[in-house]
Amino acid sequence: MVNTPTTHRFTPTRWHNVLGSAPAELEIESGDTIITETIDASGCDRLGVKRSSPPNPVNGPIHVRGAEPGDALRVDILDIRPNRDTGWTRTPVMPHLVDAVRADEFLPREMVTWTVDPVAMTARLATPVAGLERLHLPLVPMIGCFGVAPDLGQAISTGTSAAHGGNMDYRGFTAGCSVSFPVGVAGALFFLGDCHAVQGDGEIVGNGIEIGCEVTVRLTVEKHRKLLWPRGETAEDIFCVGNARPLDQALQHATTDMLLRLDEEYGLDRKAASHLMGQVVRYDIGNVVDPAYTLVCRVSKKWLPQRIET
Amino acid sequence: MVNTPTTHRFTPTRWHNVLGSAPAELEIESGDTIITETIDASGCDRLGVKRSSPPNPVNGPIHVRGAEPGDALRVDILDIRPNRDTGWTRTPVMPHLVDAVRADEFLPREMVTWTVDPVAMTARLATPVAGLERLHLPLVPMIGCFGVAPDLGQAISTGTSAAHGGNMDYRGFTAGCSVSFPVGVAGALFFLGDCHAVQGDGEIVGNGIEIGCEVTVRLTVEKHRKLLWPRGETAEDIFCVGNARPLDQALQHATTDMLLRLDEEYGLDRKAASHLMGQVVRYDIGNVVDPAYTLVCRVSKKWLPQRIET
Amino acid sequence: MVNTPTTHRFTPTRWHNVLGSAPAELEIESGDTIITETIDASGCDRLGVKRSSPPNPVNGPIHVRGAEPGDALRVDILDIRPNRDTGWTRTPVMPHLVDAVRADEFLPREMVTWTVDPVAMTARLATPVAGLERLHLPLVPMIGCFGVAPDLGQAISTGTSAAHGGNMDYRGFTAGCSVSFPVGVAGALFFLGDCHAVQGDGEIVGNGIEIGCEVTVRLTVEKHRKLLWPRGETAEDIFCVGNARPLDQALQHATTDMLLRLDEEYGLDRKAASHLMGQVVRYDIGNVVDPAYTLVCRVSKKWLPQRIET
Amino acid sequence: MVNTPTTHRFTPTRWHNVLGSAPAELEIESGDTIITETIDASGCDRLGVKRSSPPNPVNGPIHVRGAEPGDALRVDILDIRPNRDTGWTRTPVMPHLVDAVRADEFLPREMVTWTVDPVAMTARLATPVAGLERLHLPLVPMIGCFGVAPDLGQAISTGTSAAHGGNMDYRGFTAGCSVSFPVGVAGALFFLGDCHAVQGDGEIVGNGIEIGCEVTVRLTVEKHRKLLWPRGETAEDIFCVGNARPLDQALQHATTDMLLRLDEEYGLDRKAASHLMGQVVRYDIGNVVDPAYTLVCRVSKKWLPQRIET
Repeated sequence: MVNTPTTHRFTPTRWHNVLGSAPAELEIESGDTIITETIDASGCDRLGVKRSSPPNPVNGPIHVRGAEPGDALRVDILDIRPNRDTGWTRTPVMPHLVDAVRADEFLPREMVTWTVDPVAMTARLATPVAGLERLHLPLVPMIGCFGVAPDLGQAISTGTSAAHGGNMDYRGFTAGCSVSFPVGVAGALFFLGDCHAVQGDGEIVGNGIEIGCEVTVRLTVEKHRKLLWPRGETAEDIFCVGNARPLDQALQHATTDMLLRLDEEYGLDRKAASHLMGQVVRYDIGNVVDPAYTLVCRVSKKWLPQRIET
Repeated sequence: MVNTPTTHRFTPTRWHNVLGSAPAELEIESGDTIITETIDASGCDRLGVKRSSPPNPVNGPIHVRGAEPGDALRVDILDIRPNRDTGWTRTPVMPHLVDAVRADEFLPREMVTWTVDPVAMTARLATPVAGLERLHLPLVPMIGCFGVAPDLGQAISTGTSAAHGGNMDYRGFTAGCSVSFPVGVAGALFFLGDCHAVQGDGEIVGNGIEIGCEVTVRLTVEKHRKLLWPRGETAEDIFCVGNARPLDQALQHATTDMLLRLDEEYGLDRKAASHLMGQVVRYDIGNVVDPAYTLVCRVSKKWLPQRIET
Repeated sequence: MVNTPTTHRFTPTRWHNVLGSAPAELEIESGDTIITETIDASGCDRLGVKRSSPPNPVNGPIHVRGAEPGDALRVDILDIRPNRDTGWTRTPVMPHLVDAVRADEFLPREMVTWTVDPVAMTARLATPVAGLERLHLPLVPMIGCFGVAPDLGQAISTGTSAAHGGNMDYRGFTAGCSVSFPVGVAGALFFLGDCHAVQGDGEIVGNGIEIGCEVTVRLTVEKHRKLLWPRGETAEDIFCVGNARPLDQALQHATTDMLLRLDEEYGLDRKAASHLMGQVVRYDIGNVVDPAYTLVCRVSKKWLPQRIET
Repeated sequence: MVNTPTTHRFTPTRWHNVLGSAPAELEIESGDTIITETIDASGCDRLGVKRSSPPNPVNGPIHVRGAEPGDALRVDILDIRPNRDTGWTRTPVMPHLVDAVRADEFLPREMVTWTVDPVAMTARLATPVAGLERLHLPLVPMIGCFGVAPDLGQAISTGTSAAHGGNMDYRGFTAGCSVSFPVGVAGALFFLGDCHAVQGDGEIVGNGIEIGCEVTVRLTVEKHRKLLWPRGETAEDIFCVGNARPLDQALQHATTDMLLRLDEEYGLDRKAASHLMGQVVRYDIGNVVDPAYTLVCRVSKKWLPQRIET
């Protein structure tokens, strides 16, 4: 007997600041779809009411039946749309990303509001700023923080990320993308939050345009897909994610995992994978502001041989 | 009186392994164009004859009249085309980019030949490799190593890079791109070499497809354009280049220089530049294999206000 | 009324692989002393019986009455002595600490036994190794992993460290040293384990001589001592601890905290503290093998003015 | 015939800001001794007269007959003594070593004078600073910048360091220490300058107490001692030096070279060397302010077997 996939509307009443083994708020079958509204990184909902505290309160956990350590949890991001008409960022670029500043260049951290048009799917600064009067950014809504409970009883802050996912703040985690996480505990315990209306590489001001969203994801257990790090794909690419400081190490994790993946899933040994990656690999920088940075290693599907059926 | 720009065909008979204050091989006016053939990273010319030694022998130096410290030398890359029908790479992915390997995964460094079609502008492995039998890569020829003599009597290896340019191995240095370097000595002393038929991000096998090319560049002195780091542009983007280890520091240099540039050239103060960069910045990883890594910070021109005339 | 400090013998029956908000196994008054035996990093007790699992099972938590977030928990290490006559290490030096190896230099991870004499306080390799036949190392027993429960519901693996302490693997955490940790939750919840009979800088083989110990510590609440990072002292020095990757960042945290400390506790402003630290600071490298590295910034008390009474 | 070693008094009239292949100012035999006075990092001599420009003008080059690439040049530091009664440092601690500062903590770079007593061998701040009124630092004079000309025609700034030596700013380079550098060119071309009266680890304010010194060194060619990095020894220790950014990489170079050295010079294979280093290695941090950082890996001679005669 096969279950017919169900769509659940999940409306949380409390939120979490860690990804860990909290009691499940919802229990679903593998293959089910969730529609849920996130609150923003500061804990404010669509009406601006403070519902939880920073950092990055997340919805969940959702227990997916049948998920066991050694499996992966695949998250298909089906839709993300802002649920309100303002978002916010901070300024300036984080000091650790800037060569030693002069005191007179040192700016206090300040919050700024963006007016978001969820229909036209654009954002502009709510208060005009000299030189940016005509800036209308197209929205590319994305999930900042999602993943599963880590193993060994760990409970990891939503302010950072690791092998289990977490606060990766990568602008590529948008509708049409799917990401698989290594399951650490029975039921996987999925969490989700911290959406951004749009974000540059690196999240270098410490934020994307922070906003609540209605997010639709499908959660599927991939049995025995032993993952070390999150792996994903889009229509064009496969990708592997490394979360660590510094960037060199995040790059090392993501590159290694792509070498392993090309072998496991496409039958390319280390030498063949090196030939290919050397000339076609692409790296995207997720965040460079959290305790762990995020670096994504991508390879276009057009260069790959047939995927090995497993 | 204004000089009519001249096109020079420059055919070197000796090459350099450092960018430094060697006697000029050619002296030109600002605005002149150079057509020159490069030899490959190992020192072999279009006929496979060894003409010089590694690392990355470069053509030059070219003295550009009127260039003084405090000026910049703008290099417009007008054309790059392979001048032979084979190139080479090495395998595997460099060990420092891979998580601690098992001994049985450790592969010796090996050279592999690619057949290059300079008309169809494609490359394929000369000897078939399992899983990559159908791989035909479109060429995107690029300059691996170029720049000017550094100041203070330094002579910096063509195996690395710094503020003066050098071996940046960034796949974006291709036809249509222009790059400006901070002039360190009178005449600028421009060098050029180490072209690749195509290359992935990071140059993670230590090579692009190494090949000789015929390269056409225009060299123009930009008076009093006090640069700290190389800056450039394409039709779509402006970009700033940071060369340093580790990636975090290269990113810091490139990000800082973009903040400065948005202020100097577009009138966006630190706060406005932060608003913009936070949501639209793009980072490209040049090389992660040389003593200095290369990271490029890009902003699309479509988000920028009118450039300030200077 | 002042409580007379009590000495508690704490004999755990279960162990933890995270520092987090587990139910207290013992509740004590501030100023009380604990005597407890630790098991080794692999979970084996003094009789070689496996009692728990890696990584680094720790005793605790111990609730210290009156400790609140904003306070510090001071841990005076009064005594550490091995409770058995063998310890173990692994070999070789971790691959990420060695420049790209040749395959024939790549050694599998192997465990080696050391014979420990807890009376003479020396260790030697149990099986002779060519060139090290006469090596008798004096023991300097130390605590590898200790600290308090972090805030925000986090539960952090005993395989790593952060502001709350954890697996710092610093050879200076030995008898006579005291360390204060920032309290994250009510009662502080102190944990302790992973003792080493002796260890070099960096813990570069991934271990000190791993052994169980009888450890005596006094735990004292320091009210309102708002700490960002662990701080400690010995008879000679004061020190500040930074836990992060890479070393540069751990050094940054420890250096900053020392600047703050010299101001808060000794009245040296940033300029005076810079004069002093520039010429007398010492850095010790704790571990360079865990996800967070540990770097210790020391200043000799002989250079310091009178401590400010608070 | 064996030459009787000669002592040369070398009084330079010009100085260099790079280590490179400049014409020799003095030519000596292997085993000869040099006595020379250095000027300070800013170029001022014992009388305060500006003789050269920053960064770190060095005396030399000295050509040592018989030195060839593949050899090492051993430098025995026989004596260093300040030649004047004032030195200087800058303040504050360099911003890149401090966690993101608040604007009100941001101090401008300032120079401060120290009164040096070359007889009592102490230094104190020339102008009293609150809290440091009684600070009298014992002098431990050291060489900040020394080494040989690099190979391949490179000329490397005295502001940084690499395999050839250079501006390492390690407080251990003091009288009684000897250091061997890999010879890059015929004659070795030795340079020396930038002495400090005393310095803390890391040179974290960007300076030791900058001063001119009379330095006595003996220079000896070690034939066929193929070095990758500087290696040295004191009465107690042998040590290996890594120069690179970030600290992790400098540590990697120094650690690898110690593993190689224990094999080559003491017959300890990788496994035995790991057993030993794991429990006894010491790391010292040289500078963390120059483009390349310096990290020194030390092993006490008391743990080592008999040195292999070569």
